[in-house]
Amino acid sequence: MKNTKFKGIIAYPITPFDENEKVDIVLYKQLLERLIVSGSHAVAPLGSTGVMPYLNDEEKEAITQATVSQVNGRVPILVGVSNLTTERTIYHAKAAEKVGADAVMIIPMSYWKLSDDEIVKHYDAVAKQISIPIMAYNNPATAGVDMSPSLLKRLLEISNVTMIKESTGDVQRMHYLKKELGDDVAFYNGSNPLALAAFAAGARGWCTAAPNLIPELNIALYNAIQKNDLQEAQKLFYQQIDLLRFIVDKGLPRAIKAGLHIQGVEGGQLRKPLQPLTEKEISELSTILKLVNN
Amino acid sequence: MKNTKFKGIIAYPITPFDENEKVDIVLYKQLLERLIVSGSHAVAPLGSTGVMPYLNDEEKEAITQATVSQVNGRVPILVGVSNLTTERTIYHAKAAEKVGADAVMIIPMSYWKLSDDEIVKHYDAVAKQISIPIMAYNNPATAGVDMSPSLLKRLLEISNVTMIKESTGDVQRMHYLKKELGDDVAFYNGSNPLALAAFAAGARGWCTAAPNLIPELNIALYNAIQKNDLQEAQKLFYQQIDLLRFIVDKGLPRAIKAGLHIQGVEGGQLRKPLQPLTEKEISELSTILKLVNN
Amino acid sequence: MKNTKFKGIIAYPITPFDENEKVDIVLYKQLLERLIVSGSHAVAPLGSTGVMPYLNDEEKEAITQATVSQVNGRVPILVGVSNLTTERTIYHAKAAEKVGADAVMIIPMSYWKLSDDEIVKHYDAVAKQISIPIMAYNNPATAGVDMSPSLLKRLLEISNVTMIKESTGDVQRMHYLKKELGDDVAFYNGSNPLALAAFAAGARGWCTAAPNLIPELNIALYNAIQKNDLQEAQKLFYQQIDLLRFIVDKGLPRAIKAGLHIQGVEGGQLRKPLQPLTEKEISELSTILKLVNN
Amino acid sequence: MKNTKFKGIIAYPITPFDENEKVDIVLYKQLLERLIVSGSHAVAPLGSTGVMPYLNDEEKEAITQATVSQVNGRVPILVGVSNLTTERTIYHAKAAEKVGADAVMIIPMSYWKLSDDEIVKHYDAVAKQISIPIMAYNNPATAGVDMSPSLLKRLLEISNVTMIKESTGDVQRMHYLKKELGDDVAFYNGSNPLALAAFAAGARGWCTAAPNLIPELNIALYNAIQKNDLQEAQKLFYQQIDLLRFIVDKGLPRAIKAGLHIQGVEGGQLRKPLQPLTEKEISELSTILKLVNN
Repeated sequence: MKNTKFKGIIAYPITPFDENEKVDIVLYKQLLERLIVSGSHAVAPLGSTGVMPYLNDEEKEAITQATVSQVNGRVPILVGVSNLTTERTIYHAKAAEKVGADAVMIIPMSYWKLSDDEIVKHYDAVAKQISIPIMAYNNPATAGVDMSPSLLKRLLEISNVTMIKESTGDVQRMHYLKKELGDDVAFYNGSNPLALAAFAAGARGWCTAAPNLIPELNIALYNAIQKNDLQEAQKLFYQQIDLLRFIVDKGLPRAIKAGLHIQGVEGGQLRKPLQPLTEKEISELSTILKLVNN
Repeated sequence: MKNTKFKGIIAYPITPFDENEKVDIVLYKQLLERLIVSGSHAVAPLGSTGVMPYLNDEEKEAITQATVSQVNGRVPILVGVSNLTTERTIYHAKAAEKVGADAVMIIPMSYWKLSDDEIVKHYDAVAKQISIPIMAYNNPATAGVDMSPSLLKRLLEISNVTMIKESTGDVQRMHYLKKELGDDVAFYNGSNPLALAAFAAGARGWCTAAPNLIPELNIALYNAIQKNDLQEAQKLFYQQIDLLRFIVDKGLPRAIKAGLHIQGVEGGQLRKPLQPLTEKEISELSTILKLVNN
Repeated sequence: MKNTKFKGIIAYPITPFDENEKVDIVLYKQLLERLIVSGSHAVAPLGSTGVMPYLNDEEKEAITQATVSQVNGRVPILVGVSNLTTERTIYHAKAAEKVGADAVMIIPMSYWKLSDDEIVKHYDAVAKQISIPIMAYNNPATAGVDMSPSLLKRLLEISNVTMIKESTGDVQRMHYLKKELGDDVAFYNGSNPLALAAFAAGARGWCTAAPNLIPELNIALYNAIQKNDLQEAQKLFYQQIDLLRFIVDKGLPRAIKAGLHIQGVEGGQLRKPLQPLTEKEISELSTILKLVNN
Repeated sequence: MKNTKFKGIIAYPITPFDENEKVDIVLYKQLLERLIVSGSHAVAPLGSTGVMPYLNDEEKEAITQATVSQVNGRVPILVGVSNLTTERTIYHAKAAEKVGADAVMIIPMSYWKLSDDEIVKHYDAVAKQISIPIMAYNNPATAGVDMSPSLLKRLLEISNVTMIKESTGDVQRMHYLKKELGDDVAFYNGSNPLALAAFAAGARGWCTAAPNLIPELNIALYNAIQKNDLQEAQKLFYQQIDLLRFIVDKGLPRAIKAGLHIQGVEGGQLRKPLQPLTEKEISELSTILKLVNN
């Protein structure tokens, strides 16, 4: 396999804000530390969970810098550097490499739907400017464009595009990736409710915000798969599925922040237009968290 | 679990026609016998594979009768009895029970989209007239209506609706069924490309036309799951996935008939408007069948 | 234009049943007569409104015969003859021609999704056996297959396929038909809420069940278009849109029957699984009918 | 009607870039002038056509300033000020009002799908900070969120939200707006291929990039509607439909720029990842432009 550094549970931290909607770097480091010490195999700042698109350039750079400094080599770091323009994507990819990221994640953000050729040129232009690996991230729900398996195949011809994160929610996409691309390419699951199906299909890792709330269960599921114990994995999966569905349905940043608060952990504020969960939703989440941990 | 008779590989025979588009019962029995002796755990005549909606009443009754007589108690029999009208559905359900079917399968066929209440009344009216179990079958692609998990839950309150066949192609539906309905209810996978994901999710059986062509692989996959050997199951799944996808993409009756011919087995004719696969498609299928068996 | 007989308001009668769910031919003739005397330009028995797919062969033939006899040459008759199998479609098309239908309407009913080639062969096989014109009917919601504009173009190469009924609900399909097919081909609108947009786009007629309830408004809308008076047409359209939406949302046979009852007209029973509207829906329809007529 | 300033053809200029992908303000003013002198009733800088989301804050302000100065009171100006965060949306809305925009257009851009409450709070927060009118813009294809008619109704309760631009491509949405919201609210069509259907439905204006290429035809269509001449409007619509479809299919900025070049007008460069049309597409556009003008 081309890339071996990232596997298992790849944890996505949220980006906390203070009461003036400014990024709270001190709190960010504390939340990141929780992910590391609870056993995540890698961390991924500036993902969807980290509301990357809502941050300006300086804020993104501050988060990346804080991550590298806090992690201090304990786990690999995957930094989100996606941007609507190719120029800004290159800028952030280079910045991430410079401060010490192990890899960058790029989703083809699009306002105008991009053609396949435009997407290939976009990735290629970025890839030429950095030497660390790129994870191509497919998530039509947030990107507005759905990269077909054949397009992903084209992207993998770019030498440092070595990982694919699949978040369409359709496990058959993963079957295709595994079948067509073979063992040279690592694919990662980005759809929480597909955690079991994706590992069964051969996913190398699970990109997830869930370790902010239930790290033990996430890691136990991965370990059961590693031990080839499907029955145990199935049991663990059904134990956590309600939480996985809840955080996806309500939006990861909003749901994680609410869950942290329920668990007595300070998670900071959201940046508008994102609003806190309603009281009813918070109550539902409390119930789920209690059941999950029994 | 309410019903224990049906599990594992539930094989769907095709309905062969002669050159005048008449049902060929002699050939049907031969094709059915192949499914039994190759190890299928149950058979299901008059499914989509058996082009049930294209048959008239007499033809359906002849197929059911032939199945019972040929099977002769060796495996359980699940007979498709769906019809647009409630009256005809009752008619065929009673007829199937009378000649010795072990259970009936009912999809809410709809020209006019049925409301949830209409669907519940439809199943209830049939259930009252028979004493064998009913498998409720959800397949929006052929039925024109998608039964939500909450509707399926309502159907399961009818005492002899004890099994659910899920064919939406969305493995998360199965997660929901397992999680919400618990171990009282058996759910079956009707989506071939989801065979592995469905077993991982806890499906009790796999309703499939594939044993007409690759029975050993289908059964081996089920056995690997039974042995809790995920790695072996994954390997076997990827060995057969191309065939599973092909037969679904081209339509089961057309693809199975073509595959039988490639394997030197007489499969009869199709009833129009269904047409044989094109030469190009047949050639593609030949290649897949060769690779599958290596 | 190839065919000139059908234009304006093409009214779809319901098929009424008695208390034993048997077709009530006497009542059918009364309901048909209402459509004729209220000014519809043509009638179309055995459409979706007439629950054709829920009828057996004898019932279909009885309805056709009753229509020809009741109409007695006053308006053109378009008979629905669609069937899952090609053989039965031919049978009913020939029967309709024999008793005096002016044209037949055929939707490519499909359980197994038909390929374009299968659909063309299906229409061609029927067309060869009759000499009256065929209206090709596209309605993915009921047929389960969506005929692309390019497929419709292929169908129009068959000499007696001369009319197209478009019911996708997408007015851009009609733009395409008008633009690509030119003035040789008549296209008809089958989507009630698109009545105004379709006439603006150049539809030659409106296939609708609405004249069972509001014939004056339907005909007035057509007349305004004929007079090139868009403002009047717009006013008339907004006067009836709530009713048009309601009958589509609830299903035409159910909604029309309920509306007739509200208007004091006997409409007979439905055939199960179709159920009457709920009391709440009936009350909503009453309100709409009152407002429409003011 | 609450707002009367905007009606008819509201023309969307592109934002041209120089060879270093910098905004070319001089060229922008020339392209804007073409729209004004060819008779557009209003102009709308920083729309999707103007690739607003690909611009940084300074660039957006420069475009707004240049528009006000070039227009010099001749036609009303509608400025796009949408942003992912509420804070930046307020910033640009205030800036636009300050330099002299007549109204602002806001689409609820979303990476994380916004709830209805989040969207209402977003608009309300902006509305409170400005006194010029707001056009709420619904376009799920670019925004990633589809505002339901009931949500739009809620937005209209905010006093300076007075206009709605509908770009779902579904004319029935416009029927709903007209029917439910009455004559107090002006709705505008943002879907080029629906130009005729939208005017027939009562749209007050047409937000379009087409006047960059075929201003005479766009304006003639509006004039025919004003004269209540549906037949003339229909003829004019079918004359321009191929161009309208082409520019939508290929993406407005890319298609307009190519069309300008074909017409001998300098349109500048695109900003990456957007790429020029392929030669084949350009050739297709040339053919369409020739036919349109005959």
